[in-house]
Amino acid sequence: MTASSSLDGVLAPVLTPFGPDLSVDEARFIRLARTLMDQGLGLAPFGTTSEGNSLSVDEKIGLMDALAAAGLDMARMMPGTGCCALSDSVRLSAHAVTLGCGGVLMLPPFYYKNPSEDGLFAAFAETIERVGDARLRVFLYHFPQQSQVPITLSLIERLLKAYPGIVAGAKDSSGDFANMEAMCTHFPGFKVFAGTERLILSVMRAGGAGCISANANIHGAAMLDLVRRWQEPDAAKHQTALEGFRSVMEGLPLIAALKAVTARRTGEPEWRRVRPPLVQFPVEREEELMERLKGIGVLG
Amino acid sequence: MTASSSLDGVLAPVLTPFGPDLSVDEARFIRLARTLMDQGLGLAPFGTTSEGNSLSVDEKIGLMDALAAAGLDMARMMPGTGCCALSDSVRLSAHAVTLGCGGVLMLPPFYYKNPSEDGLFAAFAETIERVGDARLRVFLYHFPQQSQVPITLSLIERLLKAYPGIVAGAKDSSGDFANMEAMCTHFPGFKVFAGTERLILSVMRAGGAGCISANANIHGAAMLDLVRRWQEPDAAKHQTALEGFRSVMEGLPLIAALKAVTARRTGEPEWRRVRPPLVQFPVEREEELMERLKGIGVLG
Repeated sequence: MTASSSLDGVLAPVLTPFGPDLSVDEARFIRLARTLMDQGLGLAPFGTTSEGNSLSVDEKIGLMDALAAAGLDMARMMPGTGCCALSDSVRLSAHAVTLGCGGVLMLPPFYYKNPSEDGLFAAFAETIERVGDARLRVFLYHFPQQSQVPITLSLIERLLKAYPGIVAGAKDSSGDFANMEAMCTHFPGFKVFAGTERLILSVMRAGGAGCISANANIHGAAMLDLVRRWQEPDAAKHQTALEGFRSVMEGLPLIAALKAVTARRTGEPEWRRVRPPLVQFPVEREEELMERLKGIGVLG
Repeated sequence: MTASSSLDGVLAPVLTPFGPDLSVDEARFIRLARTLMDQGLGLAPFGTTSEGNSLSVDEKIGLMDALAAAGLDMARMMPGTGCCALSDSVRLSAHAVTLGCGGVLMLPPFYYKNPSEDGLFAAFAETIERVGDARLRVFLYHFPQQSQVPITLSLIERLLKAYPGIVAGAKDSSGDFANMEAMCTHFPGFKVFAGTERLILSVMRAGGAGCISANANIHGAAMLDLVRRWQEPDAAKHQTALEGFRSVMEGLPLIAALKAVTARRTGEPEWRRVRPPLVQFPVEREEELMERLKGIGVLG
């Protein structure tokens, strides 16, 4: 396994800001990206939280180019590049490699339900072959509740065998620690990122690489602190604190809520905008959310 | 309701052929499109059966242009234009209008699960507003088993109120006749297409506009015959015959099976190719399928 460790730690699936006409606001995007990276976080642009699937391929390429043009460290980036269409996944992944991204986060094609394992293997294999670049590092995105298409251990095993070094790890957003633990145990060197800060300590103890969580957009520094100090005696206390934070966010329409908090934090109301089918967080509930976050020391 | 009736009847979600490198084979696509239209069928390119979501926007625009360049009657076409990304749906729909397509078939954005009705309304409304062309005719694509995002009667009601004349009808692939009947009953003039030939007679009796079915790729003429003659005394007999045909196809991996049959019918083995995550129909099962189809008089 030769995957670089430049992505280890906490990656933020950075929120995507929109203009009044719902076009992508590149300048504002870069400002948040820089703020997050200044906290020591890596970035996972175009994830679920980034409304990545609500963006066209051209829009995503434009944002990747903007990140590179801003001089941000592309080795610390894992853009989402897995689309329903093979041709889209290839184009995005190849572009990410060209820009020097440390890896790409690949959803399986998610329109057809109950695809065979052979079909899913072919989807990843054809993408990897077409990108055809030894620098490619693929992180498999397991999020069955959203994609409806799970990435099983046996599929990972086949992909690792066919593309050692290229298939580098996974983000597991299932919330099922037993699955994360099994990935860590079965595939030494395979980099497993918990999709929730609730499981940082558990996944680090199991040999994981870190965490990629929506909430890193507003509370990533604390997550990174736990990832770095998981072996220290008071790590459990930090995990408990993160769970307190998480309980504040739980049950909210998460992406819209994170955008509302970002609007308040930055003083930029434009952050509230989402692309449909998402809807804006109710403005009348913002104050309560902000108070609760401040009450637990988040957003001081 | 001012939707034109040029689309009434049977539309084939025409299969998409691929080259050895899985690129789109435009020439072969046009040949099948012409064959189907010569049978009196309209076309619904880029549907589920067309592997529409496995194609990039550029590939779909290329195929639309090829259909127009081939001189085929664009008024008889309802291309699939509903994508996860608003920007993609707008670009495809606007292009379809420019080419004179009789309508567009719009899936809801299907990545985020359990979207609110407000969010879905906004997704369709923003698309319609951005296309901004009075010639647009939107057919809503209700296929909850595949998209996981149903289009409810109350959503249709809101859309019809906001965009009368533009929101023109629906394809209902739920298989639930009660839902099709409710659409016909509640929304006079709204054009309802059954997503299965099993329900042609029922939906025509309820006031529907026709049928859009995968199987029209190989047996569309018989479906069209029933749509045209549904009021004749022996219509039920024709419906029963179609059900016999359908029972042969049922349980098969449908898209791959239709491509295998098309490969045999045309003598062009290239038709067997699918894009992942689909997999080819097992060659060793082709002969049995062909025999069964011939046994009921299909493919004579």
